[in-house]
Formats: sequence, C-alpha cells, structure tokens
Amino acid sequence: MNQYRVLIDANDEKGLVHKVSSIFYNYDLNILSNSEFVDKENNKFFMRSVVDGDINKCDLEESITSILPENCSVKVIEPKKKNIIIMATKELHALGDILIRHEAGELEANILAVISNYDKLESLVKKFDIPYVTISHEGLERSEHENKIIESINSFGNVDYIVLAKYMRILTPEFVQTYEDKIINIHHSFLPAFIGANPYKQAYERGVKIIGATAHFVNNNLDEGPIIAQEVIHVNHAYSWKDMQRSGKDVEKVVLSRALKLALEDRIFVYANKTVIF
Amino acid sequence: MNQYRVLIDANDEKGLVHKVSSIFYNYDLNILSNSEFVDKENNKFFMRSVVDGDINKCDLEESITSILPENCSVKVIEPKKKNIIIMATKELHALGDILIRHEAGELEANILAVISNYDKLESLVKKFDIPYVTISHEGLERSEHENKIIESINSFGNVDYIVLAKYMRILTPEFVQTYEDKIINIHHSFLPAFIGANPYKQAYERGVKIIGATAHFVNNNLDEGPIIAQEVIHVNHAYSWKDMQRSGKDVEKVVLSRALKLALEDRIFVYANKTVIF
Amino acid sequence: MNQYRVLIDANDEKGLVHKVSSIFYNYDLNILSNSEFVDKENNKFFMRSVVDGDINKCDLEESITSILPENCSVKVIEPKKKNIIIMATKELHALGDILIRHEAGELEANILAVISNYDKLESLVKKFDIPYVTISHEGLERSEHENKIIESINSFGNVDYIVLAKYMRILTPEFVQTYEDKIINIHHSFLPAFIGANPYKQAYERGVKIIGATAHFVNNNLDEGPIIAQEVIHVNHAYSWKDMQRSGKDVEKVVLSRALKLALEDRIFVYANKTVIF
Amino acid sequence: MNQYRVLIDANDEKGLVHKVSSIFYNYDLNILSNSEFVDKENNKFFMRSVVDGDINKCDLEESITSILPENCSVKVIEPKKKNIIIMATKELHALGDILIRHEAGELEANILAVISNYDKLESLVKKFDIPYVTISHEGLERSEHENKIIESINSFGNVDYIVLAKYMRILTPEFVQTYEDKIINIHHSFLPAFIGANPYKQAYERGVKIIGATAHFVNNNLDEGPIIAQEVIHVNHAYSWKDMQRSGKDVEKVVLSRALKLALEDRIFVYANKTVIF
Repeated sequence: MNQYRVLIDANDEKGLVHKVSSIFYNYDLNILSNSEFVDKENNKFFMRSVVDGDINKCDLEESITSILPENCSVKVIEPKKKNIIIMATKELHALGDILIRHEAGELEANILAVISNYDKLESLVKKFDIPYVTISHEGLERSEHENKIIESINSFGNVDYIVLAKYMRILTPEFVQTYEDKIINIHHSFLPAFIGANPYKQAYERGVKIIGATAHFVNNNLDEGPIIAQEVIHVNHAYSWKDMQRSGKDVEKVVLSRALKLALEDRIFVYANKTVIF
Repeated sequence: MNQYRVLIDANDEKGLVHKVSSIFYNYDLNILSNSEFVDKENNKFFMRSVVDGDINKCDLEESITSILPENCSVKVIEPKKKNIIIMATKELHALGDILIRHEAGELEANILAVISNYDKLESLVKKFDIPYVTISHEGLERSEHENKIIESINSFGNVDYIVLAKYMRILTPEFVQTYEDKIINIHHSFLPAFIGANPYKQAYERGVKIIGATAHFVNNNLDEGPIIAQEVIHVNHAYSWKDMQRSGKDVEKVVLSRALKLALEDRIFVYANKTVIF
Repeated sequence: MNQYRVLIDANDEKGLVHKVSSIFYNYDLNILSNSEFVDKENNKFFMRSVVDGDINKCDLEESITSILPENCSVKVIEPKKKNIIIMATKELHALGDILIRHEAGELEANILAVISNYDKLESLVKKFDIPYVTISHEGLERSEHENKIIESINSFGNVDYIVLAKYMRILTPEFVQTYEDKIINIHHSFLPAFIGANPYKQAYERGVKIIGATAHFVNNNLDEGPIIAQEVIHVNHAYSWKDMQRSGKDVEKVVLSRALKLALEDRIFVYANKTVIF
Repeated sequence: MNQYRVLIDANDEKGLVHKVSSIFYNYDLNILSNSEFVDKENNKFFMRSVVDGDINKCDLEESITSILPENCSVKVIEPKKKNIIIMATKELHALGDILIRHEAGELEANILAVISNYDKLESLVKKFDIPYVTISHEGLERSEHENKIIESINSFGNVDYIVLAKYMRILTPEFVQTYEDKIINIHHSFLPAFIGANPYKQAYERGVKIIGATAHFVNNNLDEGPIIAQEVIHVNHAYSWKDMQRSGKDVEKVVLSRALKLALEDRIFVYANKTVIF
C-alpha cells in the first residue's frame, strides 16, 4: 500500500466532490486527508487529497480527468524527495537554516547544489558535502550571467524548485519564464510594502512598528509574484535599520523554510497570481 | 434555495466522503464548503458541510444516518440566531465586548438575558434593552443559588448556549450536567497553566514572559473542559500582576468572543474532552 | 504627594541624564519610572519620567529647561482625564470598543462628544449619555463641512485629542493643521501597504497571507502620518475580502484603543514623522 | 574609547539614578543606553547602562559601589566573546541553529565544545571544527556520569554559560549548583504547563490550541528555574502529538537562541526566581 497526493484544479460545478470520491471508492483508496476550496468569484474548484492504496498513477489521473470539466488539471504524485537548487549571494542565515533542516531530515528534498555569484558561502556549503558553484556576475551582461547559471542548473539534471535564499540580483523575465512557478524567493519585507532595494531602511524611515518577510513565487514583475507565506515581528523606535535587518533575519529564514516545506509537500496551487494552500 | 449546515460525527471507515457526497448529489445540493477530519487514533470521522438547496431537514438527516456506521451523529442545521444567556459577576470588558458585537449585528444570537450575582453591571446591560437579573448568592447554599439561576434561565425559554463572561463562581456538577457542552467559559490563563484562583498573580509569581486566556466548555472538573480557543500576549518584568490583569482583559474578551462565534456558527465538535473546529 | 509625568525632548549632549536627575534630586522627587532614548542619527534625546513629590509644575519645568540645550521641550504633566472627541461615520466596532472601555473606567478620558456625518450611530452613543452631533456632508463643500465640524468641536471647549474611529472622509490640510499631532486615526491596513480606499479589497487581490491595521497621527498627506501602533492577523485563501474586512475589525479596534491609551498616558513623542513611545 | 556595560542591582532608595549618573559624568563617560527598573514590591533597583569612555573597570566599580546602599552588586563588563559549552542528546535542530548563528558571526561567543551522552551529533559538530565529546551515561550512576562531564567541562578552561540544547537527562542539584545561573535550558512547553516528560504528548491529550517553548536558567527544581524567554505557535485538532513535536522544534530553537543572545549581551538579571531583562 502506497500513499499518493491527488491535486485537482478545475472549473467548479455541482457534484465534483461526489464524482472524485466515487473514483477513490472504486479504486479502493482510503482517504487519509482531504481539502477542498471553491473560489466562487472565479468559479474555480481546488482539491488536495492524500490517499492510500494500490494503483497505477496514470490510470487514476486519467479516470479523474475523464469525469471533470474540460481544462482541468489533475496530478497524482507519489511522495518522494524533490530536487532543489539553492541560489544565494553572501548572507548565511536563510541558506544555513535550510542546510540544517536538510541535515536533520526535515525536508523532503535533495539539495543538488548551491549556486552563488560570490564564493563567500562556499566553506559552509562544502561542510555539508553539497556542490557549490560560484558564477560571478562581474564583467558579464545580465543575460550572459544567467545563461551560465542555467547551464549549471541543467548540469545537475531535473530540478523541481529553485530556492532564492537571499539571492540579491534581479532575474530577467527570460530566466523566470524558464522556471515558471518553480522559483521561490524570500523578500525581506511585508509585501506589498517596501518593494525593491533595502526594505529595512525604507521601514525604518517610515517608522513602522512591525516588520516582516514574504516568501513568494517569482514571476516577471519583481516582488509581485504569488505570495506563499508571510510573518512579522514587532519593532520599536529604538531599532536602527541595522537592528531591523538583524532581527528580520530570523523571520526571513522561518518564512522561507515554511514556504519550501509547503512546496515540497505539494500543498500549493498557484492561480490568478495568488496561492491556495492546503 | 436555503443554506444548511450538515454536521457528521461517526466511526471512520472507507468511503464515508463518497457516501455522504452521493447523498448531497442525489438531493441536488450544492456544496459551498466542506471540511473533514479523521482522528486516526480513535478511528473517528468528523465532517461539516455547508450546502445550498431545497430539502426537508429530517429527511436529509435520516438519509445520511442510514448510510453511516452505527452510533453516528448527524445534524442538519438551518442557520439562524441562537438563544444565549450571559452570566457575569462584576467585570465589564468581556460582557461589554459581546454587547457591542451583538449591537453591531456581528453575532448570530439573541441575548435573552444577563444573569449576575451582583447588580453592578445592570446599568450597562439596561442601555442595550436586555433583561438583567440579579441573583445574589449571599446567604444561600450553592445549590439553592444555582436552582434560582436555573429557574431564571428556564423562564427565558429555550437556551442554546450559556456564556460565562467572567462569572467568578464555581458551578456544581449538577448545574454543569444540566447544560452539557452548552456552557462556554473564559478562563484568564493559558490553560492548563494556572488553574484556579487569581491566575495573573500566579503568573506574576512564576515570572512568565507570556500570559494568555482560554475559552472552553465547562464540564465537571473546574477549568478542565474541552478547549475552544486560546490566545496570548507578551509581558515582561515591568508588569505587576495588576498590569497583567489589565492587559489580560483584552485577550480574554477577544478569545471569548471568538469561541462564541465558533459555537454560534456550529463549527465545534466536542469529543474526548477536546474540540474539533472547522 | 502627587505624581507627575516629565517629558523631555532635546538635542543630545553628554550629561543630560545626570543634569535632569540632579534636579529631581534637588526637588526631593522620587523617580517611579524612567525611560530614555537617544536617536544617534539625529542627535536627539528623549526622556519620560514619572516622579512623585510636592512641587510647582512651572517651577520644575523652568529648572529643567534652564540646564538643557537650547530648543528643548519640557513638559511637566499632572495625570488627569484628557478631553477627547470621537469622529465616526457608520461603523460601530471601533467606536463601541472605546465606549465600553470608557464605561469600564479603563481610559483616562472624558468623551466630550461623538461627531458623525451620519446619524447611524446615534442610538448607540446616546445609550452612554454622550452628546452625538450629526453634521451631514451632503450638499456642502469640503471646507464648509469641516468648518461646521470645527465649530461643533469648539463648542465643547478644550480638546486634547480627536479620535477618528473609522471616520471615512478625507480631511483637508487646513483641518489637520488646526489639530496638529492631536488627531489619531485608524487605517484598516498594515501601512504603508494599501494606502487609500478599500485596503481589504486591495489585500485580497494581492493575495496576502497577513492583514493588519495601523493607528497613526494624521498629517497633511493621507495615511502618511507618524505611526503609533500596528497589529496583524493571519488570513488564507479562503478569506473573501468581506471576510478580511470582518476579521480586520477586531484588529482595528484593538490597535486604535491601544494608540489612544498611549496618548492619554503621555507616552508618545512625535519626531521626524515617527513616534518614540515609552 | 571603549564601551562598557554597567550592571547594578541594589536595594532601592531615592536618588540612585542621580548618584550613578553623577559618577558617569565625573568619569567623563557618554551614556549610549540606559535602562532602569524598580521592583516596588521587593524594594529592589536594577540598572543597565552602556557607556563609552576611557576608564579603569575596577575603579569605576568601586566608585559606584561606594555610593550605593549595602549589599549591592555592581559589574562593569567589557563586551567580548563569552565561552560557552553546549550539551545535547540526539536532536539536531536547536544545536544546529546555534552552530549556524555562530558561523554567521551573530553570537558574541566561542563555542568551546559540544558534550553529549550519544555520538549521534558528532558528524554535524565536527563539520564546524568544534570539539565533540561523547560521554555515555550507560552503566554509570548519575553522579559518576556528571563528574565525567564536569571534568570534561573543566578541561576546556573558563566557561561562562552551559547551554542545554535539548539535553534530555535530569541534572542533579550538585551539578546545577556548580554552575549557578550559568545553565540555560530549553523546555519544550509553555511553562509552567506540562512540566516533565513528553510535554507535546501532554499538550495533545489536553487538546490545547497553542503550544510553546520556554528558555530558563536551571536551578534545583526541574523546569522551575527563572524564565528568560517564551514563545508560542497555534495548533489545531489536526495536529497529532508528533506534528506538535515537529512544529515545536521551530519555536524551541528560536527561543533558545534568543535567550542565549540575551545572556551573551549581559542583559539578564536573576532575582527571586525571575529575570529582569533589559
């Protein structure tokens, strides 16, 4: 008996739960957990079930697809480690948190490599026997630099997610489109406040009493992709922007790891520049 | 077309979602929202659906019951205002919050009356044209006092919930059994820490850095009933226990109102001295 | 023996604490609490002390001023109820929370009146024996309308703070300047995100996972005044913008009441479009 | 010019701030930050100042002591890395978080060694070039085992703090007294709830809606020492106790690291089985 995650995304109509659960029943599957959501405004139906049984994945996918409205998406996924590549620049905290969780066996992931535009984090990453690739951006056009990165990513085989653990360079639309809904970024502000550079300085100057961090998928427009997770902490007048930056690191790493975990467990649907998370 | 809330509590077995959704389908009901939970340890299945259609309630209840395992509980509830009675002693904040929410139309409830062992809150309650009954406990045995309260409650007709908005007297097992799973209390600590009298003083003496409040159903053992909602706030060394008490009031009122709202919307299942909340 | 709050705002230089505490010592004052903050970037010193003794206020103010650098501000304040006027439109929750706290004796304030552009909240306010003034904006120029409001405010005598408890009209610079650093507003978003109209709808459309509220002083630029307090709650994909609005009310009322309490206790310094809060 | 932290703990009397700030002034010290607290119930005065200047530490200590009431404690501390030893058992998350922060330069500490009763964490610790000492408890009396640990600790020279990063054995009063106010423990519950073994299981069985973690100094009575920091997260009915344990790890590591940071920055006073934290 194996576990499978069934992810359904379809136009809504009456009887969908009934139809899908009928198929589970006919396949003699046991439902371990079940979540549904209907976006009434857009007439969309989302469902994530974890089932237990003995099936052929493609077979089940086809059966479910056959009873759903057209243009639906059905995925039957066997839980296993996904392949991820981490991109970072110079900061250690977010990357370090992922490395420790990986070491602790908390993540359903193989870290294929860490790619950075500097060699600063190499000694840390090497401790964990993970390949570290330095691809300097100096003297390169943005597209040249990214092509080198894509080449490097390709050299590690199939990649499920690219995690930007404080990768401090803007990505071109071409790069982003290559990995649509596969790039998870941590932005060091409570989006949509303080888009762009140095959000802690912006927050300090505005005199906010709460700062935060946002994990999101990256799409064409910088910092405007679908939000996966957000968290905040309270600050006060005694915080300089450097203090905010320091305290913010703890939020950044927690939020990025939370978002990554949701992705690895196939809990996220992306739709209309938003996420549905079960 | 009317909305109905369908609440199911049964021993778990394969196919329950399928069977129930088949019935919804046969009754031509539209599922507006659907939540399920299986307690694997105890092999129990819980489901709450909101459906939309044109049905006979008893009919639907019987149909669902007929396809479920024995000893199940099925309730089909038409959303409407429930009748509540509030009991309080001298403190205004939790009662006041409920009165304001009631006035704002936020609560699906008719407040039949406020019953207190003091007349201190009478002028407030009267402002809102709600009956206020003072039943002093002085010179009375506990059971005598409670009998008078029960008599008063009965005089207001059918009661769905009794809300203890800082009612500071211990209730006897007899009283509690009369209103099983119908009495919602707010305890001014983060249970199970600081059971009993003056929890803020206990918290102060222990030097905790967080204080909280707990809303729960009342059962025989004081402060040990099924927990509905909890919330906390941070404190520090500069808080006297009076400061904690003052700050704690804001948490108390929020938590009690949240628990009451959950109850009024039929979102709570009580099971094994715990709650399942959808 | 009386308590006094001493508020000092001066350019920083070595020895300020020493000099001020010498004066307290010479006046035979007991320091009950003491908070200091130095903004190193702007070289500004802030201090709030609560002292206990038998003094002449003006005398103490002059003594402290005489030993501080030029252009300092020194206030010696005897704790007593401040006079406030609340402005509201149609929503009940924030106003109601203040009324209940006032009734409970939690606020060091006299509510002189509630002024609204609609009569919708009149019956609630009248319950608490507080004057309610309806000044409709219909058919009036903005300045005409505000002049009527100012006239009404003036008729109640000296006002320490004007609390905008969901007053849904934009105020002119003229009005705002009349009550500089005296108008406290609650904005229903986590500023600076979602400035302007219908922030919950904006938040819903952006797909945020956290919503919030911000209490701030009002200055010329809408929603850009010095922030006093902020708070947030988590939301998810299942929240419509109406749900966010509903849940947000609880945050709004808590934040506004918290900000008001800070103001009434003379805990806020306004400086460089920010607040220092002790 | 050097920075110094001045920590004062004395019986309260009028004029203490004045007297201490006079000395700072006479020594030509600049006050960078200043925090005071008076525990009125116990008539105790606490003060922590960060000053900047050119002084002899002992000299300043004596000068301050000479003007304070008897039985005071005065410490003038030059900020520098403290020596810590970490004790752990088999769990990686709390230890790993400290190692990463140490690697990132976030902690004012030298980690002299990690001591464990198992060798499970050795490979992780070795990656960071930190000595790892396995001292198995098997076949040993508790006191024999602890004597071996003390011997090992002594071999690393002077130790400022011992951090129990999920060290799962009870320490004897003898061990604890040897390192009074120097042992920081993380307990995986919101103390005083769920003292003792398997708090997550206890929390699950009680059906709480919030779980937490507590960092505290260890004294004679297990889990009853002065609390330094606490944090919580919300859970619901769908959490098994294993889920709580998993989610709880994130809180545990955050709280332990926060407490350690406070200790390393000399921000904690221990008094009456509580902490005053500036």
